Amino acid sequence: MGELRKDPILGRWVIIATERSKRPDAFSKEKETVVDDLSVCPFCAGKEKTTPPEIYSIRDPNTRPNEPGWKVRVVPNKFPALGIDGGLKKHGFGLNDMMNNFGAHEVIIEGPDHKREMKDQSIDEISTVITVLQNRVEDLHRDERLRYILVFKNKGRGAGASLAHPHHQLIALPITPKRVREELQGSEFYFKLKERCVFCDIMEQEKAYGERIVYENDGFFAYCPYASRFPFEIWVLPKDHSIDFYGPKVREKNKSLADMMKVILTKMDKILKDPDYNYVIHAAPNRFPRGGYWQTIEQDFHWHIELFPFLTKVAGFEWGSGFFINPVAPEMAAKFLREEKVA
Amino acid sequence: MGELRKDPILGRWVIIATERSKRPDAFSKEKETVVDDLSVCPFCAGKEKTTPPEIYSIRDPNTRPNEPGWKVRVVPNKFPALGIDGGLKKHGFGLNDMMNNFGAHEVIIEGPDHKREMKDQSIDEISTVITVLQNRVEDLHRDERLRYILVFKNKGRGAGASLAHPHHQLIALPITPKRVREELQGSEFYFKLKERCVFCDIMEQEKAYGERIVYENDGFFAYCPYASRFPFEIWVLPKDHSIDFYGPKVREKNKSLADMMKVILTKMDKILKDPDYNYVIHAAPNRFPRGGYWQTIEQDFHWHIELFPFLTKVAGFEWGSGFFINPVAPEMAAKFLREEKVA
Repeated sequence: MGELRKDPILGRWVIIATERSKRPDAFSKEKETVVDDLSVCPFCAGKEKTTPPEIYSIRDPNTRPNEPGWKVRVVPNKFPALGIDGGLKKHGFGLNDMMNNFGAHEVIIEGPDHKREMKDQSIDEISTVITVLQNRVEDLHRDERLRYILVFKNKGRGAGASLAHPHHQLIALPITPKRVREELQGSEFYFKLKERCVFCDIMEQEKAYGERIVYENDGFFAYCPYASRFPFEIWVLPKDHSIDFYGPKVREKNKSLADMMKVILTKMDKILKDPDYNYVIHAAPNRFPRGGYWQTIEQDFHWHIELFPFLTKVAGFEWGSGFFINPVAPEMAAKFLREEKVA
Repeated sequence: MGELRKDPILGRWVIIATERSKRPDAFSKEKETVVDDLSVCPFCAGKEKTTPPEIYSIRDPNTRPNEPGWKVRVVPNKFPALGIDGGLKKHGFGLNDMMNNFGAHEVIIEGPDHKREMKDQSIDEISTVITVLQNRVEDLHRDERLRYILVFKNKGRGAGASLAHPHHQLIALPITPKRVREELQGSEFYFKLKERCVFCDIMEQEKAYGERIVYENDGFFAYCPYASRFPFEIWVLPKDHSIDFYGPKVREKNKSLADMMKVILTKMDKILKDPDYNYVIHAAPNRFPRGGYWQTIEQDFHWHIELFPFLTKVAGFEWGSGFFINPVAPEMAAKFLREEKVA
């Protein structure tokens, strides 16, 4: 079933997914394509039996699970990187640490229509997708064996999607991943120094400066970060400080978040001509009374979305250094995005 | 000329390369291609005037710089991410830190023949390329304003190369990059605990275990790391402990390193059918009597090469987590590589 392995020098975890294991000849160039054929798409209405049984759905009254009539549908990934069976087991051998690949890997299908991208949905429809994401994260946060729930979206082949039908994914992990830990550490360090949230301070500074603003509405603020890794990278912050993505105060603003996503995805699409893209939601890790490795507190983190179109290649320099070379100044990207008309 | 910017939360630096700046319409899909047309390749013999003037070359007696007759030639990158003019200037504004993009960006052309990949060169020829890389790193290590010299190779479009003619690159930076700092920290932590080099210990353990060995000769040891990020990732360690890539003891083994590179690149090519790939050389940062931020000592780091073919897409989950999903167990990759006949 595969396992999680920890690099003995860097402390970085890797999922060795032997379930998906491939022989060398499976890697010939350009072999990977996105499934974009309506007749074989497992996510379309009427194809419910071709996925594993659904975990959750929002559906019309009087329709049954795994039948048509759904608006948003959540199913296990058919080729999961992690699985919930058997519980969490940790081992070591010499320098090497491992765990079995305990966790969850779910697919959130955004609607029955293969061709209807999120940006083309109504505010109500997008808001429903967001509610489903929140419900899944809230549900998985109850499992004490899980440390982190990462929600993300890959759109297009360049961005790593294997199916074209609009969907999000969610991976629930028994550890808080390195990249999130670094954000938590950075925010904690700043909070200890200033007794203020670094994200709140960044938002204030960006509002005052103005040149990196992309869009804002009553609940959310979007900007191109000062040290953007990628051209046209956009971060979305909730204006009200909160560390979790699913609390009641956050849910009150779901229509505002739906508006935000519709606007920025539309702007990006118009300027960059339908680019492939990724986004991830970074919220706080699971927290329990008896604590885990990370004791995040309410004040020192701020959930947010990091969105980046797939426009440049990542090469030896980036992998070898952790540096990024970004050929578009964030101020220029923000100007294009801010000025692009949506309607 | 662009600048280096530091992320206020993560401490990660980014190069905003306004020299290379592109308007949004430059990013339409699949527009980037590798220059593989002999008539326009600037790296071929006879085209010396189409590159910036050479910094260094190994050439036949009685030939002049920037004319044919060279075996290995080093030129500045025509579109450099960093430049040596004007000195290092650091600034801050509110939460944001920046430096001008002080540094160097060089191209090491491996030979005059466009079609001759490194694996097809003789041991003597590869050894000469290695010597040139060492000479450049040694030279740049004398500049106290530079903190780190990163040598890397991108082969093929998927791996980020824009020119097909075989070449390495080198980027000299005014800071030690994040990814290297993490390795230095990890090694230092281990050394403080054990008073032994973690890389030496890993090499011992891998030799004893055997199943992740790819190849070894008198000077070098190649294996697929326990927590490989990518399918068929290979690390090459010098058997003798050393932190620098260019010392006299290291240079004594250059033919051994040439043999190692020829063997592993040939094996990889045969198994994976000429894959695109990257490799990077991780050695110690610059060290000066009055010290820098990083006080690496001789015992606690070990220079090495990290090589990875470009076979899988990096998607939202990886960017959002710092996790990697590797669909090939390193033990399986090593078995294929170890058993592949070279001759």
